[in-house]
Amino acid sequence: MSSKIRIGIAGYGNIGRGVELAIKQNPDMELVAVLTRRDPSSVKILTEGVKIVHVNDASSLKDDIDVMILCGGSATDLPVMGPQFAEMFNTIDSFDTHARIPEYFASVDDAAKKGNNVSIISVGWDPGMFSINRLYGEAILPVGSHYTFWGKGVSQGHSDAIRRVEGVQDGRQYTIPSEKAMASAKDGSEPKLTTREKHTRECFVVAKEGADKTLIEKTIKEMPNYFAEYDTTVNFISQEEFNRDHQKMPHGGFVIRSGKTGAENENHHVIEYSLKLDSNPEFTSSVLVAYARAAYRLAKKGEFGAKTVFDIAPALISPKSAEELREELL
Amino acid sequence: MSSKIRIGIAGYGNIGRGVELAIKQNPDMELVAVLTRRDPSSVKILTEGVKIVHVNDASSLKDDIDVMILCGGSATDLPVMGPQFAEMFNTIDSFDTHARIPEYFASVDDAAKKGNNVSIISVGWDPGMFSINRLYGEAILPVGSHYTFWGKGVSQGHSDAIRRVEGVQDGRQYTIPSEKAMASAKDGSEPKLTTREKHTRECFVVAKEGADKTLIEKTIKEMPNYFAEYDTTVNFISQEEFNRDHQKMPHGGFVIRSGKTGAENENHHVIEYSLKLDSNPEFTSSVLVAYARAAYRLAKKGEFGAKTVFDIAPALISPKSAEELREELL
Repeated sequence: MSSKIRIGIAGYGNIGRGVELAIKQNPDMELVAVLTRRDPSSVKILTEGVKIVHVNDASSLKDDIDVMILCGGSATDLPVMGPQFAEMFNTIDSFDTHARIPEYFASVDDAAKKGNNVSIISVGWDPGMFSINRLYGEAILPVGSHYTFWGKGVSQGHSDAIRRVEGVQDGRQYTIPSEKAMASAKDGSEPKLTTREKHTRECFVVAKEGADKTLIEKTIKEMPNYFAEYDTTVNFISQEEFNRDHQKMPHGGFVIRSGKTGAENENHHVIEYSLKLDSNPEFTSSVLVAYARAAYRLAKKGEFGAKTVFDIAPALISPKSAEELREELL
Repeated sequence: MSSKIRIGIAGYGNIGRGVELAIKQNPDMELVAVLTRRDPSSVKILTEGVKIVHVNDASSLKDDIDVMILCGGSATDLPVMGPQFAEMFNTIDSFDTHARIPEYFASVDDAAKKGNNVSIISVGWDPGMFSINRLYGEAILPVGSHYTFWGKGVSQGHSDAIRRVEGVQDGRQYTIPSEKAMASAKDGSEPKLTTREKHTRECFVVAKEGADKTLIEKTIKEMPNYFAEYDTTVNFISQEEFNRDHQKMPHGGFVIRSGKTGAENENHHVIEYSLKLDSNPEFTSSVLVAYARAAYRLAKKGEFGAKTVFDIAPALISPKSAEELREELL
C-alpha cells in the first residue's frame, strides 16, 4: 500500500512530459495515470506501470487520483477542461491568459465547490512565481513601482512570423530584456516603461539557397506589430548551426520592485526576482508538481474551491515538515 | 470610529522608528501606541496623537491594539518579550538568531495559544523573505543546491572590531558577495561554498593624526576570525568623507537556487532573488508591517499560535482583495 500522492496527467504534450519528469524528482509522489485524446494504445510514456486512459474515460479514475494536473493549452483546452475536471478531481493548471483569469477562476470555482475539490489555477512562472513576487514587492514596499521583463527566451508567435517570410527556411526569435530599461527600472526614477521599451528582439534565420538575405532582413525588421516597433537584429546561420543551437526552449525573466521608505522617501530599495531557464516547459511543470502537493494537503484538510498561488502558504508546497522548515530554511 | 488595523510598537529604536514610517505608507493601518523602557515623557516620536506608554504598563493596552510589533533585539530582548507579549497581543517580531529559532518558536507558541493570539516570528528579510525564497527554490527544483550571499552591507560586529584597533578614529566594514563565488553558484556545477569563500570584506577607516596606517592595515587584515580568513581591503579616508558617505545602513544579498530537470538532468535552471537596500532597518520594518496585516486577518478568523512566514499565504500580506489580486497581479 502506497502513501504517496497519486498524480494524474491530463494531456501528454510538452507540459505533460515535464510533469512526468518532475514527479520522478519528488519521492512523495507517484504518477498513476495519463489521460490522452489520442488512442491510448498509441501513447508511449517514460514511466512504467502507469495507466494510459482516454480522456473521455476520466471519471473511471476518480478514486485512483489525488490530484489531476491539467496540461492543456489556455486558448481552447483549459476553458473547457478546467471546470469539467474540477468537478471530478483536485486539479492544478497553468491557465495563462491573464485577461481572462477572473472568468476562468469563477467557472473553476463553481465546479470545484460542486465536487468538493481543490483547484489551483494559473500555476507556473508567469502567472505563478512572478505573480507572487509582484504581490510581495508591492505589499512590502507600497510606495514604488514594479516591472516585469521577459526573456531571454523563445517567442513561438514571432518565430512563426519569421518562417512565413519569403526565402526563409527556418527561423527562431528570442525576446531579450533591454539592458537600458532594466537599469532604469532599478535606479529609483520609477520610469513608465512599455513592453516595447523593455524588450529587444533577436532573430536566427536559415535562408533558402539563393534567397536575398538583405530583403529577408528588411522584411523582418519592418514587419508591423511583430518587429517594426522593436530594436531587432537578424542573424543568418546555417541549418546545422540552427539544429545544434536553437532546439531548446529556454526562457526566463525578471520581476523588479523599486520602492522608497523614510520620512522623506529618501531610502531606495530594489527587490529583484529572476529566472534563467534552459527549458520553459520543464520548469513550469516543476512548479505545477510542487503546487499539486499543496492541493492534496488542502483537500485533506477539507478545503474546497478554486485557489491561486496567492492563497497558498509557502510551507504547503514543500515536502518538509514545519519543524524541518523552521530548522533548515528559516 | 476607525476600521484601521491598530498597531503598537514595542521598543523605539531603529526598527521601531522604521515601523512608524512604514505604517504611514499603509492607509489601512494606524499607529496607536509606542511602548518604551525609558521615561515615556522623554520619548518623542514622529506621529501625532500616539500614546507613549511604559513597557511595564503594556497590559493596559490590551483592548486598544490589534497587533503589537516587537522591535527588540534577538540576543536578550525577544527571548523574554516574545512569549510575554504573545500572551497579551497578536505579535510580529524579527527574531533572527537562526540556531535558536526552534526553541523560540516553541515558547512563543505556548504563550500565544494561552492568550488565543497569533504571533508571527522571525519576520524580515533573513530570516524572512530570503527564507521564503530558499523554500520556494527547493520545492520547485528539488534536484539542486541553494546559496545565500549577504551584502553589500554594513556588518556592525566587524565595524566595532576595526574601531578597537590602535590608532583608529572611526571605521566601518562592508560585507561584499564575491563575484567569483556568485558566478559559480549559478553555473550549474553546484559547488560547495563556505561563507568565507562567498564574501569579501571592505573597510573604511579614519586614522588618528600621526597614526601608522601601514600598521593599522596590517592589524586589521591579520585579525583572526574577523578578517584573516577573508580577502580584505582597507581604505583610509578623512572624517569628512566618512561622515558624508558612511552613515547609512545599506544591506542586501542574494538567494540563488541552481537546479536541474530532464530525463538526464540535462536542463539547468537558476532562480535568483536579490535585495539592494539603502536602509536595512527600514526595509525590515516594512516587512514587519506587511505581516502585521496577516496576523490581524488570521486572528480575526479565529486562528492562534506561533507562525512563521512559511505559514502565511502571500495574499494575507496585501491590502488588496482576492479579486483585485487576481485581476491586477496574477
